[in-house]
Parts: sequence; C-alpha cells; structure tokens
Amino acid sequence: MGLDPNAPLGVFDSGLGGLTVVRELRKALPAERIIYLGDTARVPYGTKGSATVIRYALGCARHLAKRRVKALVVACNTVSAVAPERLRVELDIPVLGVIDPGARAAVAATRGGRIGVLATASTIASRAYPRAVARLSTRAEVIAQPAPLLVPLAEEGWTEGEVPRLVVRRYIEALGRAGVDVVVLGCTHYPLLREVIEDEVHARIGPHVRVVDSAISTAADVSAFLHDRRLARRGEGSSDGGVELLVTDMPETFRETAARFLGADIGDVEQVDL
Amino acid sequence: MGLDPNAPLGVFDSGLGGLTVVRELRKALPAERIIYLGDTARVPYGTKGSATVIRYALGCARHLAKRRVKALVVACNTVSAVAPERLRVELDIPVLGVIDPGARAAVAATRGGRIGVLATASTIASRAYPRAVARLSTRAEVIAQPAPLLVPLAEEGWTEGEVPRLVVRRYIEALGRAGVDVVVLGCTHYPLLREVIEDEVHARIGPHVRVVDSAISTAADVSAFLHDRRLARRGEGSSDGGVELLVTDMPETFRETAARFLGADIGDVEQVDL
Repeated sequence: MGLDPNAPLGVFDSGLGGLTVVRELRKALPAERIIYLGDTARVPYGTKGSATVIRYALGCARHLAKRRVKALVVACNTVSAVAPERLRVELDIPVLGVIDPGARAAVAATRGGRIGVLATASTIASRAYPRAVARLSTRAEVIAQPAPLLVPLAEEGWTEGEVPRLVVRRYIEALGRAGVDVVVLGCTHYPLLREVIEDEVHARIGPHVRVVDSAISTAADVSAFLHDRRLARRGEGSSDGGVELLVTDMPETFRETAARFLGADIGDVEQVDL
Repeated sequence: MGLDPNAPLGVFDSGLGGLTVVRELRKALPAERIIYLGDTARVPYGTKGSATVIRYALGCARHLAKRRVKALVVACNTVSAVAPERLRVELDIPVLGVIDPGARAAVAATRGGRIGVLATASTIASRAYPRAVARLSTRAEVIAQPAPLLVPLAEEGWTEGEVPRLVVRRYIEALGRAGVDVVVLGCTHYPLLREVIEDEVHARIGPHVRVVDSAISTAADVSAFLHDRRLARRGEGSSDGGVELLVTDMPETFRETAARFLGADIGDVEQVDL
C-alpha cells in the first residue's frame, strides 16, 4: 500500500476521551509519532444522530489523512459504532476502532456470559456491541445502558465526589438487576470516571464484577496490526515518538487537561478548522 | 425597512433551552407566527470559544433570514453575549437578545445591589452581564458563576432529584458567600431546572433571594419592539400564530420534549442542514 513506517498514527475523538487510548498507545508503542485530533467544537457526538456523527467523523478523518497518517485509530466508541466502513471506503487507509477490542476484552472476562455495556445513546442505538460480541461468542449476551451524562462530567472534570457517584449509581441499576459480571466502559470518556464506576459496580452489583475499558486492548490491536504489516516505527534507544495535539476549539483548556492526563511533555495545542 | 407584519418571528438557540423564551413569546404575542431553530447538531454552545459560537450563530441566523423572518430573537445567552453585533451587521434585520432584558429584571429586583448570575463559561468570559448591568445602574454589581453542567442536565431531562440538587448546590456556594439577593438564570436552559434552583437558593442563601429568568422580560421587549415599529401581527379573534420547529439533528427526540414543553399543538419537527 506504499505506507511509510515513519509516518504518524492518526487518532481522533469528539473531545478529550480519546486521550485514554493515546495513553495506552504510548505505553505499547512508544516510538510511534501520534497526531491526536479532538473535535472540541462539536463535542459531544454520542447524543447526536448517526448521519451527523458520520459527517463529523469524515471531517476529522479527512484532516488526518491530509497529514499523511499511516493508519487511523478511531478513539471514539460512537464513531467506531456507526462510521468505520464509511471511513475505510472514503479514505483508503487502515482504520482501527475501539468496539471490537472492547468486546474481545469483555468476552474474555465474563464467566456467566452476561456483559453490561455503558455507552452513549448513539452507540447503543447502533447495536454495535451486541453484534461484535455475537461474532466472538455464541453464549454471551449484552445488556446495554445509555449513560450520556458521563461525557459532560468527564469533560468538565467532575470525576469524583457525590455527583458522579449518584449518576453512575442510577446508570448501573438495570445492569445490577440483569446480573452482569462484566461492565464495559463503552465510551472513551468513561475511563476518566473509572474509580467511581468501579466503586459503585463493586458495591452495588458485586465485588466479583470486572470493569473493562477498550483502551488497553485497542492499543494491543494497533500494535499487532502495525507489526503484521511491517508498519511499526523503529525507536532509536528510548526515543519517544511524541504526540501532536490538534483541536477544533478551545486549545488552552484542552492543553491543561491533556498535560495532566498524558504527562508533562505536551507541546502546544494547535487549533484547526475542519 | 419594508418588513411585513405577517412575516414570522425567527427564534434560535443551541438546543431546546430557547423554548423557554418561545413559551413566553406565545403568551405575550399569541398571534405571531414563530419559526424556532434548535441547533441540536452542535449543542452545547456555552462550553465553546466565541469565534466558534459566532460561526454557528451566523449559520442559524442566515437560515432564518432566508425564511424571511421580520426579526430575530436570539434565545440563547451565549450567542446574545458574544454575537449580537455581528448578527445585526451581517443580516440587516432587527436582532433582539436575552442579556439586556435579564439584566433589567435583575436590576429591578435587587435591593442590596448584589446580583448573582449563573451562566455558561462563554457567557461569563464575555462579561456581557456586568456591562449590561453597569449601563442600567451605577451601584449594582454582578457576581458571576459558570454552571456548565446544567445544560446537559436540562437536555437529558434530569431536572429533579438529588443529582441536579447537588450540582446546583455546588454552583451557588460562591453566590451565597457573596451575599447576593438576586440570582439570574443566565442561560435559557436553566429555567427547565427552575424549581431545584429556587429551592436551593432559598434554603442555602436565603428565602428573600429572587430568582429571575430573562424569558418574560425578553417577551415584553419583543412585544414593545414590534408594536413600536408597527410590526406586530394582528390576530383574528383568538387565532394562534403557531410554532414551526426546525432542528439540525434528532428531530424525534426534540419533538417529544417540545410537545411536553409547549403544549400539545406541536406539528412535525423539520430537520435542516445549515
């Protein structure tokens, strides 16, 4: 395909949630150069209709394609749920999403076969998780719960205390009644609230319930893909490929959060117009 | 200006918040035809930068101008705070916002001169309220508090119970310490949470504190403006001008909320692409 191992990896999300995937990518593939695009002018995606999400996702993907990325990591469950085929067809570069890796982690973790998924309304309406799980297991079943308020809570930094706790408690009620033994964080924003979610899941559903996010298995997928295709970048010694951050709005606010989230070595955040 | 009294009034907001203004407009001016546009594909506005908000507002306003509205009511505090001049200059039709009417209601209601304002981050960054209040009173002072999570709570319908109560409680803390005797609902979404806000304000700051929203005084402003310019539509008997609803995404969800909010006489909701 003529792709260059030294070209960067493109990663995008509606806002800052995708940084949870970037963090794992940097652990798994420290030599890779990463360009991250957060569509902060149009966040959130998950409350919007699939046609709108596809339009926004194409805008992000085309911008990253122009920067000659060797592959595109869709670090957003809503986009991974509704748009991966359209992106593959339109862009002619490899596109990797977060739904399949999350489903795989969930199927590996469940014992009873009842998998709870917290996700945005759009992701759940797409039925992407039940389909992904059905491809992996004939006996596992998905119980889906929309959890839309977790995105603004994460974006605003309300990740601890009574408010996120009560919101999470309400969202996991039906999962508890359904007797799930795995809860998938089906939105890349939700790992920012992982501690509260885990506490509530263990206290209300049971201490045996596993909370899985797709970031680690997505990073493993991307790594396997790059090595298979001989597209992995070779690091020189302990070289760090670095992260370039782009947003469509509010670069300063984003920079503060990203620095806190990814560590101190964050440069400027560039604002781009899609 | 060649404007036609039988032409409709254009009203827009980022989402469903502006319906609080439409409700008051219909009480004050029942014969007027109203076209309401909710930019649900890009909601929320209040967490975004002013250049982005101006771009979005121009898109909404141009669409309504094409439908030959006789005046534009900006039923969104964020847009009223950052974009009214741009809209007036670009569109060449009268533009009425919600900031000045809200400031006037607040100045009329305060005794001690300390006015609390709950609003979005963008509205507060614009300093539109302190400027509007300073034009009306030399002794009144604005204490501003960003309250960004109230928009997703209102959009998701979480308008009662413990979660909105705790969120409101945290947002009004500093207003209580500052000794305000008026709290302005400085975002058209916030009246959807009015009951919780009023309860908390009365319990935590004091039973004498007045909660004011700009919808009623905005409707009074629009009425005075139309009558002054001889642009008011004459009703025939008890005729109802009706409301036409447009959104940029998710028409079905919007329709349900709008019907609950404005009464049963809501027709279809049309989806438009800006």
